[in-house]
Amino acid sequence: MKLIQSRDNAFFKQLKKLAESGRERRKAGQTLLDGVHLVQSFEAAFGRLETLVVAESALAGGEVADYVAGRETVILADALMRDLGLVDTPSGLLAVAPMPDASQSLHLDQDAILLDGVQDPGNLGTLLRTAAAAGIRQALLSPACAAAWSPKVLRAGQGAHFALSIHEDVDLPAVMAEYKGTTAVTCLDGATSLFDARWSGPVAWVFGAEGLGVRRELIEAATLRIRIPMPGSVESLNVAAAAAVCLFEAVRRRLA
Amino acid sequence: MKLIQSRDNAFFKQLKKLAESGRERRKAGQTLLDGVHLVQSFEAAFGRLETLVVAESALAGGEVADYVAGRETVILADALMRDLGLVDTPSGLLAVAPMPDASQSLHLDQDAILLDGVQDPGNLGTLLRTAAAAGIRQALLSPACAAAWSPKVLRAGQGAHFALSIHEDVDLPAVMAEYKGTTAVTCLDGATSLFDARWSGPVAWVFGAEGLGVRRELIEAATLRIRIPMPGSVESLNVAAAAAVCLFEAVRRRLA
Repeated sequence: MKLIQSRDNAFFKQLKKLAESGRERRKAGQTLLDGVHLVQSFEAAFGRLETLVVAESALAGGEVADYVAGRETVILADALMRDLGLVDTPSGLLAVAPMPDASQSLHLDQDAILLDGVQDPGNLGTLLRTAAAAGIRQALLSPACAAAWSPKVLRAGQGAHFALSIHEDVDLPAVMAEYKGTTAVTCLDGATSLFDARWSGPVAWVFGAEGLGVRRELIEAATLRIRIPMPGSVESLNVAAAAAVCLFEAVRRRLA
Repeated sequence: MKLIQSRDNAFFKQLKKLAESGRERRKAGQTLLDGVHLVQSFEAAFGRLETLVVAESALAGGEVADYVAGRETVILADALMRDLGLVDTPSGLLAVAPMPDASQSLHLDQDAILLDGVQDPGNLGTLLRTAAAAGIRQALLSPACAAAWSPKVLRAGQGAHFALSIHEDVDLPAVMAEYKGTTAVTCLDGATSLFDARWSGPVAWVFGAEGLGVRRELIEAATLRIRIPMPGSVESLNVAAAAAVCLFEAVRRRLA
């Protein structure tokens, strides 16, 4: 047990870099996990983590204190934990975790979600979580997406990161051209209702940025253009909600 | 046209109160709309607003400048607009808008969403948006929910507020007891798969807080307990994603 109280401490400075910079995370091959649920999900998937970091006040009792009981921890003064500015409401538990190797191979004959310029961390994390819950195992992100392994995206993903193979900075048009299955895009002027559309075999589901939507180039490259019927007077859905509707319609059909 | 540069200006102080306090909004019967899309949605539904407030720099050109061209505006120095701290990325256009009368009658024989303790403004707004897109016209919120007419919830709702009758501080157990139709709740240990569940007539869909879920009392009061089948290794969905899956399964059935 070691209590860190100074902003000049080398380990704290390293945490700060990992919290703030995608470049630092890539360089170190590491990211930060915030909260018991994320740390637990990671450890369940990949085994025990070495470095657990706890806010001083979280040791007094509760979920975090229970989780770290009997384990090697580094203790951060509360002010320093807040200083990291990781998420809006820090849980009091952090872990330094290795990021999975991004060079893992891509399967062009398996289901995937392709995300085009999704910049909001909450939306991106929710999309990954929804895909993982629907049984999808690959996520391909265009260069304009938010950094998948940033603390805010990890928080919104709720462990989905460890169930997916996540590929960043992907040339989506190139992948779509090579994909061995249906490439499906949702757009407001889609030709076919989601509920009438027919597909079989693997599907690459393409979702775009809030507001801008999917790039025209990708819409034109898709082999299936669908719209979600919206009987209400509001004709738009948040991108993560739209994805939930599509991916669970696919779940429904697989189960039927 | 009038340029406000001082924090002591009475109109600015009133804006600040509306931005920060639900009590002030209720007292005034007014709220603040941020952005062209929201203002446009309001004006399309209820007619022209009197007071448009524009950030000085937004007048130089672009969407906001186009929208306010030829209209009466109050101009705020950029620093003051930022000071309001309304949303993370202020658009440069604000409007003071009347909040609809909350005493409007409740229809216990029509579809509704019932939200139990949804505190995250983004989730709450997305839930309202999804419900409105699915053709639902009533939203009933428990006292523990975030304030529906706060600027962040309005932003996430993207105009859904103007398509819904929104009832706050509702005694949900009492409403469920009186409801003339199916009261459906999703829970992880729900008895029936969403895709196998049967219902007819109006449905009151109950969704709960992230993490905590729906209160036990409401789960027990519901006439239908369903689970969303999740074939993936992550067994949870964001509440707004779960609602999207349920509400659009109902849309699919209505269209079938």
